[in-house]
Amino acid sequence: MADGFSLDPRLAGTSVEVGDWPLCHVRLADDARWPWLLLIPRRAGAVELFDLSSEDRAVLVEEASRAAEIVRDLIQADKTNVATLGNQVPQMHVHVIGRLKGDAGWPGPIWGVGEAEPYMHAERERLVVTIRDRM
Amino acid sequence: MADGFSLDPRLAGTSVEVGDWPLCHVRLADDARWPWLLLIPRRAGAVELFDLSSEDRAVLVEEASRAAEIVRDLIQADKTNVATLGNQVPQMHVHVIGRLKGDAGWPGPIWGVGEAEPYMHAERERLVVTIRDRM
Repeated sequence: MADGFSLDPRLAGTSVEVGDWPLCHVRLADDARWPWLLLIPRRAGAVELFDLSSEDRAVLVEEASRAAEIVRDLIQADKTNVATLGNQVPQMHVHVIGRLKGDAGWPGPIWGVGEAEPYMHAERERLVVTIRDRM
Repeated sequence: MADGFSLDPRLAGTSVEVGDWPLCHVRLADDARWPWLLLIPRRAGAVELFDLSSEDRAVLVEEASRAAEIVRDLIQADKTNVATLGNQVPQMHVHVIGRLKGDAGWPGPIWGVGEAEPYMHAERERLVVTIRDRM
């Protein structure tokens, strides 16, 4: 891809492609317990927020905000969680998750909670199309 | 404070004031296990990223990036974690945490890990001054 960017296979392996925004590649985590998007800035070598230019950061936060609206709308979420952690996969990726009071991890964060519950194939495809329509 | 903003007492009760940036009130979480800043946009009623204006979001991500550099420098952190969750305290606040490989929660996130270890008073005051000098 452009400028040497290539998606980390650990991110690719647990999610499916949704599409691309001006800065970020957008993926859906394959876990039916909550709507969970991954936004990966297409910038080779970016790990930390301060690795991006100020211009890229402004775009990133707009795309994260839009992603949060999308996951909110999908389930009428009570809260969205937005985070860039990267302790296990350093390639910068922003998690955007729709949360419901009483979901499996509530009120804690979702990382490390139980096991992923992969979508049924047809359900996942429908959801990807729905998200893509709102991007 | 301006425009009806007032700090949620649950945020105030677990942290100490460091200072103010153009958008955010900045606090240090009282937990000596990792350098952990809280950035609270001084905007009454803001809960979600999409509650802020685009202009405020651009400032927020700059302040979060600067905070990440500060916590990185404090401990030569291996990674910074930046997140807005708000499942327990809805008032928008961004966590910015410096992480070291092998710290108490590594490689998971730090929320809900063990018990906070409050700073010794003098140590905390020194740290607040150090952070303030870098803001």
